[in-house]
Amino acid sequence: MEQATDTSIRSIKAEILCVGTELLLGDIVNTNAAFIARELARIGVNVYHQSVVGDNPGRLKEALSAALERCDLVVTTGGLGPTYDDLTKETVAQLFGLPMERNEESLSSIQAFFDKVGRPMTENNKKQALLPKGAYPLQNRNGTAPGVIVRQQDTGKMVVMLPGPPREMQPMFTQQVTPYLLKLTHSTLVSRTIHIFGMGESQVEATLRPLMEASRNPTVAPYAKEGEVQLRVTAGAATQEQARALIDPVVKRICDTLGDVVYGVDVGTLQGAVVQAYAAKGIKLATAESCTGGLVSKRITEIAGSSAVFDCGVCSYANEIKHKVLGVQQETLERYGAVSEQTALEMARGVRKLAGAQVGVSTTGIAGPGGGSAEKPVGLVYVAADWGEGSQVLQLHLSRNYPDERELIRHLAASHALHLALRAADHF
Amino acid sequence: MEQATDTSIRSIKAEILCVGTELLLGDIVNTNAAFIARELARIGVNVYHQSVVGDNPGRLKEALSAALERCDLVVTTGGLGPTYDDLTKETVAQLFGLPMERNEESLSSIQAFFDKVGRPMTENNKKQALLPKGAYPLQNRNGTAPGVIVRQQDTGKMVVMLPGPPREMQPMFTQQVTPYLLKLTHSTLVSRTIHIFGMGESQVEATLRPLMEASRNPTVAPYAKEGEVQLRVTAGAATQEQARALIDPVVKRICDTLGDVVYGVDVGTLQGAVVQAYAAKGIKLATAESCTGGLVSKRITEIAGSSAVFDCGVCSYANEIKHKVLGVQQETLERYGAVSEQTALEMARGVRKLAGAQVGVSTTGIAGPGGGSAEKPVGLVYVAADWGEGSQVLQLHLSRNYPDERELIRHLAASHALHLALRAADHF
Repeated sequence: MEQATDTSIRSIKAEILCVGTELLLGDIVNTNAAFIARELARIGVNVYHQSVVGDNPGRLKEALSAALERCDLVVTTGGLGPTYDDLTKETVAQLFGLPMERNEESLSSIQAFFDKVGRPMTENNKKQALLPKGAYPLQNRNGTAPGVIVRQQDTGKMVVMLPGPPREMQPMFTQQVTPYLLKLTHSTLVSRTIHIFGMGESQVEATLRPLMEASRNPTVAPYAKEGEVQLRVTAGAATQEQARALIDPVVKRICDTLGDVVYGVDVGTLQGAVVQAYAAKGIKLATAESCTGGLVSKRITEIAGSSAVFDCGVCSYANEIKHKVLGVQQETLERYGAVSEQTALEMARGVRKLAGAQVGVSTTGIAGPGGGSAEKPVGLVYVAADWGEGSQVLQLHLSRNYPDERELIRHLAASHALHLALRAADHF
Repeated sequence: MEQATDTSIRSIKAEILCVGTELLLGDIVNTNAAFIARELARIGVNVYHQSVVGDNPGRLKEALSAALERCDLVVTTGGLGPTYDDLTKETVAQLFGLPMERNEESLSSIQAFFDKVGRPMTENNKKQALLPKGAYPLQNRNGTAPGVIVRQQDTGKMVVMLPGPPREMQPMFTQQVTPYLLKLTHSTLVSRTIHIFGMGESQVEATLRPLMEASRNPTVAPYAKEGEVQLRVTAGAATQEQARALIDPVVKRICDTLGDVVYGVDVGTLQGAVVQAYAAKGIKLATAESCTGGLVSKRITEIAGSSAVFDCGVCSYANEIKHKVLGVQQETLERYGAVSEQTALEMARGVRKLAGAQVGVSTTGIAGPGGGSAEKPVGLVYVAADWGEGSQVLQLHLSRNYPDERELIRHLAASHALHLALRAADHF
């Protein structure tokens, strides 16, 4: 049963077709294609092509019919709006030989949107409720254009049409399209994400290769981004419980194998894990930043609810401010310099006391491109944590010899500081 | 003469083909397609399709030959590396009926890269110096895979092959591919960018529509992003001087028409304009942030050289820190609340004095999703500037009724604070 299910969804061949002149001109980056590809991969659907065409009826028709010839499922974005050049639905209806008719459910959900935002619904918005006959409408909770799923009866070929704006498309995909595809193929999928900091992607892969290669259900897929690695463990089964029973031992085995570099499971981000850990213990964190210039506090306060664990951050870019506001001793600055273990430690301690927090973390370093020397090159960064009873400081070499690496160095330094803060919470 | 030139480059029809399984799986977002599309649009080349295929020889060949049938220029990214599944060059050579041969120039530039980063060059890296016979190699200053331009003698059709990593591809495109295409079509292009804050894209377009529609050379193209609008004015001519002579009066006319909302020409970003203005006047800025949580100082310190104008930022997330570190009066906090004009002004003044800077800016508001009330809803933000002799405060309503708008509210609040800081510099 499970086997059959699994094969069925994995045998679907898909393509992604994004419609929009603004994409062709490069005015916006096509994040939709990546999002849809990842979500399809997650449920086991293989994507073989992605393409982009402008709002041009001829080329749209050509691209759609080429895609439908090659594959079983075409997911489109864009061209569902109220204006004359929004033609995706009409083109699909034409290719499938279906008439357009008004969908009452879609019409009332468009009306509901206009009521919610308090604007009158104009006549051309009603065009959006015209769907190919027999189509399955997808509700849009964040905009006016409904999505549509059309299936050709004889071939079973499908086109899923979604609006272009990511904040409309993304929830529509995860909340409606994914469940539709799973139901159609009698599958249930469950995923868990293991978050890793302090081990590179290739080393994670090397360590886990036997497990990853042997594992078909659940699958284990790594995603690397700027100093972090995530492993997504996904199982398909007939029920959620069965899927969980397949996943949990694999997640445990991976966490045991990797040890300390795993900072959490399903925690979202490093800063999310920090806020969660501090909130759980009822303690507070303060930040003192030099080379990261506020990036650490910016990342913490990105998290809704961070005000429960974070009161104060100081960005002390100049030595005078390190001394005056954070209480770093003049002697320390003169003897060891602003970029030193000693200064990092005094900054962390200073901001902890200033804020009345349980933990203080700090960053000081050389983000470049200027300011480096033979002794203290670009990329040399110290991060420290102080928790009253103890402290820890790390010396990092973050330069990768890239041009424009300033942002990368700052990002990695901030991540190391957040990781230190997370570890420091263990002492409470 | 100018006319002929202009027609020639504008008649090229182009497609973009990105190769890489990681794109198909959605592991990375395809920023390359947007970058190349924008750069081609800038020099007047029209892009009609973008597509993505995996590292699969059959599908790559199919996609390439379909593209070459439809257009004059195919720009590819990816598949130039040293491993067996990097097949772009081989596939193009096959389609054009060209043998592969070693290019000595490319080989020595690969060697030079390995020397620079201090790693030994392995045997499979030599594969990267094999190019289709007669190809024009493009140097890679940030990686090992050289780019290639191949032109078919009889048809004039061209394939430009670029490496996948953006930091290798982008400089290769602007420094080598753009000049090659311009030289081939005997064109010169010059662009200037007008930066606008405080007027929406549709209002900018409505104000400038007659001018934008009448303007063929230079062209005027708007780009909108999170609260800012940029207008790129681009002229083509036989020489740089002639292009400039076409551009300058149009730029002046736009700046005069739009007035105060133009914050600079060719200044890069709002934070770049701030650092430039403060450095030019020899004055310093300090920041006091509540709802933006360090984002303002993060954006300022993104700019290399910002340490000349920025010493100190305080992220005062809690009332106690606003009072203790910034000197906001308890009475002010109790009477008006943390989210108020009065608190914003005292924060700006307080951090200016603490830092010994000429100007202080502040933000305080409700970024959401929690914390709002009928009186002070999510999206209510005050930003203030204090320059000793005077001060300014703005009340902003930044909510757009989106889900997940916290980051958007924070970004817009930070932009308004940077804009106030820029205006405050006029007093010195």
